[in-house]
Amino acid sequence: MALRAFRSVVALAGGVGGAKLADGLVRSMNKPSTLTVIVNTGDDFRHYGLAISPDLDTVMYTLGGVANVVNGWGLEGDTTQMLAMLRRYGDDAWFGLGDKDVATHLLRTQWLAAGVSLTEITRRLSAGLGVPATILPMADQPAPTMIHTVERGVLPFQEYFVRYHWQPTIARLEFLNADVHPTPEAEAALAAADLILICPSNPLLSVEPILNIGYRALLEKRKARCIAVSPLIDGQAVKGPAAKIMAELDMEPSANGVARYYGDLIDGIVIQTGESVDMARALNADILMRDIPDRARLAYEILAWAGKWA
Amino acid sequence: MALRAFRSVVALAGGVGGAKLADGLVRSMNKPSTLTVIVNTGDDFRHYGLAISPDLDTVMYTLGGVANVVNGWGLEGDTTQMLAMLRRYGDDAWFGLGDKDVATHLLRTQWLAAGVSLTEITRRLSAGLGVPATILPMADQPAPTMIHTVERGVLPFQEYFVRYHWQPTIARLEFLNADVHPTPEAEAALAAADLILICPSNPLLSVEPILNIGYRALLEKRKARCIAVSPLIDGQAVKGPAAKIMAELDMEPSANGVARYYGDLIDGIVIQTGESVDMARALNADILMRDIPDRARLAYEILAWAGKWA
Repeated sequence: MALRAFRSVVALAGGVGGAKLADGLVRSMNKPSTLTVIVNTGDDFRHYGLAISPDLDTVMYTLGGVANVVNGWGLEGDTTQMLAMLRRYGDDAWFGLGDKDVATHLLRTQWLAAGVSLTEITRRLSAGLGVPATILPMADQPAPTMIHTVERGVLPFQEYFVRYHWQPTIARLEFLNADVHPTPEAEAALAAADLILICPSNPLLSVEPILNIGYRALLEKRKARCIAVSPLIDGQAVKGPAAKIMAELDMEPSANGVARYYGDLIDGIVIQTGESVDMARALNADILMRDIPDRARLAYEILAWAGKWA
Repeated sequence: MALRAFRSVVALAGGVGGAKLADGLVRSMNKPSTLTVIVNTGDDFRHYGLAISPDLDTVMYTLGGVANVVNGWGLEGDTTQMLAMLRRYGDDAWFGLGDKDVATHLLRTQWLAAGVSLTEITRRLSAGLGVPATILPMADQPAPTMIHTVERGVLPFQEYFVRYHWQPTIARLEFLNADVHPTPEAEAALAAADLILICPSNPLLSVEPILNIGYRALLEKRKARCIAVSPLIDGQAVKGPAAKIMAELDMEPSANGVARYYGDLIDGIVIQTGESVDMARALNADILMRDIPDRARLAYEILAWAGKWA
């Protein structure tokens, strides 16, 4: 059976999980140029004055074929001379910045200072890496996610996630996103899409920051079908703290918890083989993406399934 | 004969030549902690938003024992992954920034943005590298040297020097140093010194930017003897464009040209063996510093000579 060709696909993504599925889509679509990935920028922060966009970079490096496939983040073959020198100066250098990686942040910082939008910057950087799809930041304004923790007070996302290895208990999340809106480019992509995917990213930490700035309203009035891919297997996150955080915030860490969280925003859900969910349209698949062939396989299965709907 | 112990020595320095002599002083003084090196910052510039101080870094890396001794500038064992990545993004990356080197610029940029003075920043960085002497920027405010060229109009120093390899013909120099003054720390060091040295740096490009912001007046009222070391051997610069520039600006590219340039600011001059100069106090020495022993030898000869004066 020939795969139904979607006219254009939009994926909402966070970091590693989102990047892997986006990469699978690029590998299994007839025209990867018709894929748009809208990426969470709630994790963005300044470090040593550098403007760092961890999720954007992870998606960009992955789709550019230059990602470190062991870490999932960072660049293949990158080195850490700069970090070693920072430590020599007595800095604790808690955030991983590869030497090649610094080039990305320097250009972004310089261009932001010159008034270039994050959307245009992402386009330039993606072009430099030969990314075959369109990567869009969720917004051009900063919208930092703040983590209110029980043990350490309020932490910017990366301090919580990297510096403290997501060990503090989350009391609540705060999105500093007043007056932050979807970009015109992202809004147009969603309006033109005939398939919307919510990638297997952390619903609360990676997807909610996107939904929270106006994408929820855009999805509510969608004409295209929207499918979420669960980031949980047997109640555990493949990577990162999704299950821990869902539990801390009184959500059930399960496929059902994910389905209920997205509610009417989605028309179907993809869950792990052998699991079940209280949702009419559900696809059981092996959602664990161990390697590159897995990414393409999962993306293919999702596209094939969605293409069969009436 | 025991070397006369100077109570405190101040050296005015540019980049590589100044750094080498300062290193020689550290190696041949009883107490290197009594050496203060006041460094040209007219070459400082912003690049990719980074605050870069080439001469300060060359002196700091050299005295910290971490300089690349082949180049004279940059760090030993440094790599260029960041530059390679910049080029991948289409940037021409004309200025050499090693991966370790970037750490220095990131910290400096971050601290400047936080309102820390360049003097204090240089102290922190020097401490991190275990520099045994005191390194001071000539000023805490920016004072960029602009090069008016015949072929390419007005160029910031590093564009002239690195991007265009000091090939354009200089019409004149311009020092954007209105309201820039010696720091209190540098002024105090000069007042306390019993020996002042002008290192074998380019008189016009490296020393004049220092003299021009108020150090000329401080030297004119000095109590300590002041000795210049010629940067020229047989009318040629050991490194860089000193001779070319002196000729372009109608100065004689010779020991005599250097002596006349400094005039009453100096009480003696050190020139190459076999050369002569119209100055009562002159020391002939092998002023070429090929390697580290040469640095210590030349510094020793200068200190011994100055120590014998009445």
